Amino acid sequence: MKVTILGCYSATPRTFTNPTSQVLEINNHIFLIDCGEGTQVELRRNKIRFSRINHIFISHLHGDHFYGLVGLVSTFRMLNRENPLHIYGPEGIKEAITLQLKLSNSWTDYPLHFHELTSEDSQVVFEDDKVIVSTIPLQHRIYCNGFLFQEKLGDRKLLMSKVLNYDIDKVYYKSIKKGKDVILDDGRIIPNSELTDDPAPAKSYAFCSDTKYDEEKIPLIQDVTTLYHESTFLESHKYLCDKTGHSTAIEAAKIAKKANVKNLILGHYSTRYGNIELFKEEAQTVFENVEIGDDGKVFKY
Amino acid sequence: MKVTILGCYSATPRTFTNPTSQVLEINNHIFLIDCGEGTQVELRRNKIRFSRINHIFISHLHGDHFYGLVGLVSTFRMLNRENPLHIYGPEGIKEAITLQLKLSNSWTDYPLHFHELTSEDSQVVFEDDKVIVSTIPLQHRIYCNGFLFQEKLGDRKLLMSKVLNYDIDKVYYKSIKKGKDVILDDGRIIPNSELTDDPAPAKSYAFCSDTKYDEEKIPLIQDVTTLYHESTFLESHKYLCDKTGHSTAIEAAKIAKKANVKNLILGHYSTRYGNIELFKEEAQTVFENVEIGDDGKVFKY
Repeated sequence: MKVTILGCYSATPRTFTNPTSQVLEINNHIFLIDCGEGTQVELRRNKIRFSRINHIFISHLHGDHFYGLVGLVSTFRMLNRENPLHIYGPEGIKEAITLQLKLSNSWTDYPLHFHELTSEDSQVVFEDDKVIVSTIPLQHRIYCNGFLFQEKLGDRKLLMSKVLNYDIDKVYYKSIKKGKDVILDDGRIIPNSELTDDPAPAKSYAFCSDTKYDEEKIPLIQDVTTLYHESTFLESHKYLCDKTGHSTAIEAAKIAKKANVKNLILGHYSTRYGNIELFKEEAQTVFENVEIGDDGKVFKY
Repeated sequence: MKVTILGCYSATPRTFTNPTSQVLEINNHIFLIDCGEGTQVELRRNKIRFSRINHIFISHLHGDHFYGLVGLVSTFRMLNRENPLHIYGPEGIKEAITLQLKLSNSWTDYPLHFHELTSEDSQVVFEDDKVIVSTIPLQHRIYCNGFLFQEKLGDRKLLMSKVLNYDIDKVYYKSIKKGKDVILDDGRIIPNSELTDDPAPAKSYAFCSDTKYDEEKIPLIQDVTTLYHESTFLESHKYLCDKTGHSTAIEAAKIAKKANVKNLILGHYSTRYGNIELFKEEAQTVFENVEIGDDGKVFKY
């Protein structure tokens, strides 16, 4: 699992910082999460192949999370994209994008599917045999969802040294990897546990931006491998959280601790701060395993 | 008069090139012309003070000319702008911007005035005592206007050495600068031409992007100080001009020559070319005084 931060600052794009966007690579999928202005340039800068992006998840319709989307959709057209593109985001996102395409008389030649979200409860928005993606309802000034990406457990690992002790036809390997016992020709039963090892543990990633401190989401993100949680403010500006619908670094850390996550990445820093390392210092007073998200940083798990 | 090129490449923003946007400073006004994605970052990079921008002119609604507008409008709000902002552009621009502001529940606190354009004929869109701005109808795939910015002639220059030869009260200086003769107390008439010199010549700037080769606009831009004319293609791709509604460097130079402009700036290069100096070489086979526009370049007149 690999997370590439394209941008993780709040409010407006600046000369050296970008608004929210990140790329998650998980179980052979590549997902784009949020798409602030300039995202397509950051994709190029981070050498993410545009053609690999088939699913884009938008948390909410504040500009710093989606003003780059229409440009990316347009660029896909100019690159002669043929694959369908799926966009998941709040109700209204379809109208915003299609109105601008209509005004420029530039309809996409590829299939463009909008999956508009309105539910206040968590719901599955994407699922295949490798990954399941569900929403994490967040408490912000406008309708907003985080997203939980969960690998599905792979097959059990064949222990070939054990398998070769018996005369087992290769056609049974697939069922053994699925957990089946083996019945030999002489009637003996070889338990699956003797022939296989557990699959690699399923990894999971929770993206939570933007949100005020809210413990209701904790059951949804319990035990995830990595939590990205917004931390717009340091403690010195905690009084702004309620009005703006944002969190402090310490609040992000409290959520990480209560949810027993393995890793916490911080981001969505207010542009008023010069030294973002302070966010890590404050968060680590509550939760040890904290990383500072920053534009261009890559995290592997 | 000063032109700052924020971006002048066609199609999509890339790591080191930006879509169309430029700043014109003329007679104490500052005008933003077109606003592709990333314009607000380029304004910062080029140290243009956001608060000085009160008028934005959008040629047409292709994404590379206006996808940065909504972000700039939003950033103005976050910067607590109070001055009115005037946006001039094709019909539909108001709906595109206001829909996105509505979805994010982020109305501007400052007055935002849209001046939607529909006329196929040249029209004056802005005028005060210093500058007059009018449209230049262009031939592109969708409704598109260039813009002509003309300084108004200033006052005549007082020749103090001559004025002091006579006993002229200072209260008459203003009328002398406006061109009036002077009647002395003894009845003598001093002709204005003896007391003043011509004002500095009025400068003018014509922005023409995007357009196919079209001689109809020549009377509108006759004798301008500087013409910015798109040159999307080199001669090798001239066959693409008609279909795409664009021009070659040589076509831009032909317009410059026929309109008898003093200076020509090229831009809106297709991103297929590596060496944009070739645009200058080709244009100079027709018109000598050619400059290559490029992101971050400043031209003074």
